[in-house]
Amino acid sequence: MPVNVYFAAGAADWRDYEPHLATALAEAGVNATVLRDVSYPAAVDYIVTAPNGEVTDFSPFTRCKLVQNLWAGVERITGNATLTQPLARMVDPGMTESMVEWVVGHTLRHHLGMDAHILGQDGIWRNGITPPIARERPVAVLGLGELGRAAGAALAALNFPVIGWSRSPKAIAGIECHSGEDGLRAVLSRAEVVILLMPFTPETENLLNAARLALLPQGAVILNPGRGPLIDDAALLVALDAGRLGHATLDVFRNEPLPPAHPFWSHPKITVTPHIAASTRPVTAARVVAENIRRGEAGAPFLHLVDRTRGY
Amino acid sequence: MPVNVYFAAGAADWRDYEPHLATALAEAGVNATVLRDVSYPAAVDYIVTAPNGEVTDFSPFTRCKLVQNLWAGVERITGNATLTQPLARMVDPGMTESMVEWVVGHTLRHHLGMDAHILGQDGIWRNGITPPIARERPVAVLGLGELGRAAGAALAALNFPVIGWSRSPKAIAGIECHSGEDGLRAVLSRAEVVILLMPFTPETENLLNAARLALLPQGAVILNPGRGPLIDDAALLVALDAGRLGHATLDVFRNEPLPPAHPFWSHPKITVTPHIAASTRPVTAARVVAENIRRGEAGAPFLHLVDRTRGY
Repeated sequence: MPVNVYFAAGAADWRDYEPHLATALAEAGVNATVLRDVSYPAAVDYIVTAPNGEVTDFSPFTRCKLVQNLWAGVERITGNATLTQPLARMVDPGMTESMVEWVVGHTLRHHLGMDAHILGQDGIWRNGITPPIARERPVAVLGLGELGRAAGAALAALNFPVIGWSRSPKAIAGIECHSGEDGLRAVLSRAEVVILLMPFTPETENLLNAARLALLPQGAVILNPGRGPLIDDAALLVALDAGRLGHATLDVFRNEPLPPAHPFWSHPKITVTPHIAASTRPVTAARVVAENIRRGEAGAPFLHLVDRTRGY
Repeated sequence: MPVNVYFAAGAADWRDYEPHLATALAEAGVNATVLRDVSYPAAVDYIVTAPNGEVTDFSPFTRCKLVQNLWAGVERITGNATLTQPLARMVDPGMTESMVEWVVGHTLRHHLGMDAHILGQDGIWRNGITPPIARERPVAVLGLGELGRAAGAALAALNFPVIGWSRSPKAIAGIECHSGEDGLRAVLSRAEVVILLMPFTPETENLLNAARLALLPQGAVILNPGRGPLIDDAALLVALDAGRLGHATLDVFRNEPLPPAHPFWSHPKITVTPHIAASTRPVTAARVVAENIRRGEAGAPFLHLVDRTRGY
């Protein structure tokens, strides 16, 4: 008998995922019926969802073995008290690659001082200054999960000294790892580029507040492809306007889309990118969905389960 | 007895190199006197020079075992008929790293479409399009010497499919290598980004001419951190203006500094960078100079000798 998979992530995602999900389920050897409408919630074995998905009350899905989110971030889902089923985050290899590309690209943009060339083609040949090379430019990665590790490894491969920070102590080859409040102070005091790749939880909200921003070296650059609330927006503007920070390139915001009148858009030291650093790729993400359903049917442990006590 | 090293690369280089050269010679165990003025050319054992150096007639330096250039490019030196001594190019690890950083940075800049964000902070949230990831974007590296190999390896590490081309056939792990005229056509017909890292010789002048530019896919991007004359400038402008090429980022030019009135400066699809992609780093380059002098005194073969028949 086929398992019933309810695709509840919305019409746009369905358009992108339908062909890839069919292929991935077949390749995983899973006999599944993928439903877009459900008359009998109790007959659903798996739910595929997203933060803007169609299910708000998960309690009627009494047989559901797993709720698979299509996004890496689950903070808009974990607060749903009706969601008592196991919940998996998306860890998509295509998304990880796209995140690494955004992080390395924007790090090199600031490292190489590209904006001066892109914005200032004024006919003046300025080549008297030899800027530092990567091995002279310490870069901090805050958050050492799947994405932070991958970004840190790619930066280290380009010879940047990579200083990592995570909630709990970690040891990762090629990354100088720190943890705890003292560790965070040590990391921030040396980082010429700071990359935020932490989940959003009550503990990480406003992690980069005024006091911590003040620890950064003069001219430091912030890249936030993680979650908007990790930064205290007002404190960031103050630090930029005071000339202490060099630039901030932000991909995520407290409210998305970022409103047209938001001061970030027009700030000369802020670049807004519209939550594009890491988009889930249906081809590769569909394989992750299929693999988790295969595991469920084979009695194997699910991949990327959310720990409800940590919130990610 | 100390060997006599004549530093003939000019006053500015002397200022940068003097302390590092002394350290590097001592570390290499070379007993040397470094001269800035020479009364008896026949007493000079080694000359350190640069394309704008102080020696134009090398014939009086009858005992000189090696002329060590401080630049990677030697095309302004190889035409000097008086220079019959062995000639070495600079292959500086610091310079290679800085070249790799420029190449990877500008490749990612175009891959990620960064300019649209840097130049267009207009308050409009455009996140409907999922751009290709690196593994979907073939990148060509023309020239597979020290710099081309290093840049190709760094791009391959970021998952870009790297297609390489060189005059003579080569086999390099992680790079799909081609050679010859047919190979060049095959490479150019697939390359979404083309990186020029060849030496300038009579054979490579105008390598990217109108016919070869026409082989590139629609919207392709050219990066030239190699040598200005590798591109036919007029053909490049035609291809950009016709909308066939997406962009060109150029670090090297037929005449440097590029004159303020040159059309490259004001072209919306050209970014000029002022020959900064790869600058020799005195700390690391001085070690290369010292090592070659050590080799000369030990009777060991010199590193990075120029082949006068090839011109590099």
